[in-house]
Amino acid sequence: MSRTDPLETALERAFGRVVGAQTPPRLMAAMHHAVFPGGARIRPRVALAVAAAHGPVPPRAESLAVAIEFVHCASLVHDDLPCFDNAPVRRGRMSVHAKFGESLAVLAGDGLIVGAFEVLGHAIVEQPRLAGAIGVLAAAVGANGGLVAGQGWEDEPSTDVQRYHHAKTAALFEAAVCMGAIAAKVDPAQWRPVGTALGEAYQIADDLGDLISTPTELGKPVGQDLIHDRPNAALELGPERAFARLEATLARAVDAVPPCPGQDEFREWLGSACARLFPRRPVVHHLPVREEAPLRA
Amino acid sequence: MSRTDPLETALERAFGRVVGAQTPPRLMAAMHHAVFPGGARIRPRVALAVAAAHGPVPPRAESLAVAIEFVHCASLVHDDLPCFDNAPVRRGRMSVHAKFGESLAVLAGDGLIVGAFEVLGHAIVEQPRLAGAIGVLAAAVGANGGLVAGQGWEDEPSTDVQRYHHAKTAALFEAAVCMGAIAAKVDPAQWRPVGTALGEAYQIADDLGDLISTPTELGKPVGQDLIHDRPNAALELGPERAFARLEATLARAVDAVPPCPGQDEFREWLGSACARLFPRRPVVHHLPVREEAPLRA
Repeated sequence: MSRTDPLETALERAFGRVVGAQTPPRLMAAMHHAVFPGGARIRPRVALAVAAAHGPVPPRAESLAVAIEFVHCASLVHDDLPCFDNAPVRRGRMSVHAKFGESLAVLAGDGLIVGAFEVLGHAIVEQPRLAGAIGVLAAAVGANGGLVAGQGWEDEPSTDVQRYHHAKTAALFEAAVCMGAIAAKVDPAQWRPVGTALGEAYQIADDLGDLISTPTELGKPVGQDLIHDRPNAALELGPERAFARLEATLARAVDAVPPCPGQDEFREWLGSACARLFPRRPVVHHLPVREEAPLRA
Repeated sequence: MSRTDPLETALERAFGRVVGAQTPPRLMAAMHHAVFPGGARIRPRVALAVAAAHGPVPPRAESLAVAIEFVHCASLVHDDLPCFDNAPVRRGRMSVHAKFGESLAVLAGDGLIVGAFEVLGHAIVEQPRLAGAIGVLAAAVGANGGLVAGQGWEDEPSTDVQRYHHAKTAALFEAAVCMGAIAAKVDPAQWRPVGTALGEAYQIADDLGDLISTPTELGKPVGQDLIHDRPNAALELGPERAFARLEATLARAVDAVPPCPGQDEFREWLGSACARLFPRRPVVHHLPVREEAPLRA
């Protein structure tokens, strides 16, 4: 990310609108820590790339991308809390609750969720055609199949793995492509399958990372799925088959790109973004393969 | 609240839209526990009364009222968490985290915040003139002077008491009157002072309740401000002067009601609602009066 990355500029500007003179300083610092510096920002970049595939990026498209990233950051802050993953490290630094305490971590997440909708609200007042973005974001984050539901399944005695992963990962990727489509004034439904496949690919890559990466590579603890008894495709299938499934799922995402003026460029962008983001197939020896049925299947 | 109370019906219907087949059952139960049965529902009733003061209640006004109540309920769930007030009881029953655990309490609050904006989003798609409601709600709940900021000030070494109380209480009352005005297509600014005064009155009443009520009367623990070292007007002023200030502040709210077709009816409704809701001036002996300066001033 360069300093002049337009997405980072948009994130900084939007952040400056959701905090201000009436924000307690430590809360502001905790929220800032949650958003800056970010990770790959893949979800908002997908949203902007979808919008760009239909022509010049339309006004306020960046607000939709920012909203996606704010809720993603909020979800990381809450997921890291002691009552969930109790993760001390995120993006190679202390997690928000480890650095600022649990109460400010709860509030930082709350403030970023509210901030995401605030950013959308400002955009909609200026561009009423974006009104559908509220429902899309809420569905991707909320209690009925969104991020909140995904985390909630971990509190159930059993759950369907696909439903769990869809809520926890794919829903926000679907929202990202739909946001791009809404910005471009095209039907979001035609883009949704790209988001679904991309979310599934991301989940497999995440599972592989948890299994075969080091904490330094990943910027967060590894081996968490075994510790928390969560389903992990790389554990179920073994790394070789997991890599094969990752590649097939990415191919499905590329195939699903609907006809649009920038179809080829979008596919090319997606391929190179995923190549940078996802783990590469290594020469693997002696990796653990779980032999039993999935614990939460 | 009768079973046919239109506000309760609207709350139930909206709740049924933000949870569903993709909601984990325990999360759904936790969210339901947070919203039903409710307290006095004063904030959404204020919003609807403001809308009604300008004529027949307009379409989708109830969605704005519901959104206000959902974020209020969410804030209670998060405020009760162990990392904040650690309150085991709310509305005479177990608090959400006491009954469902901390993780589901965090998620229930998150889900209700998202649900509030989701309800607004649906309303705005149908009635684009309501788009301003998103910004109003976000400002009242968010990190820059809203509920999240109010709670955040408790994590600062010192704070201004007025700013703290405004964020923690008055901001949502201001949003309630503004929502009613937006629903009625009138300028929210003319109603805001009513909300400010009402919020201040509510805060004084809350401080009095914490000091002179019993847990049975209040449905929650009392004496919490002393325990948590929070500013409390009834402790600072003594109950007699606090009651006098409560009455003066309510009179200010009534005086601030702007000219509108239902001005007299609104004033009457407000007076009777507050009489039911707020503690009555008792014959008081031997109540503690804090003699020092406010601890957090």
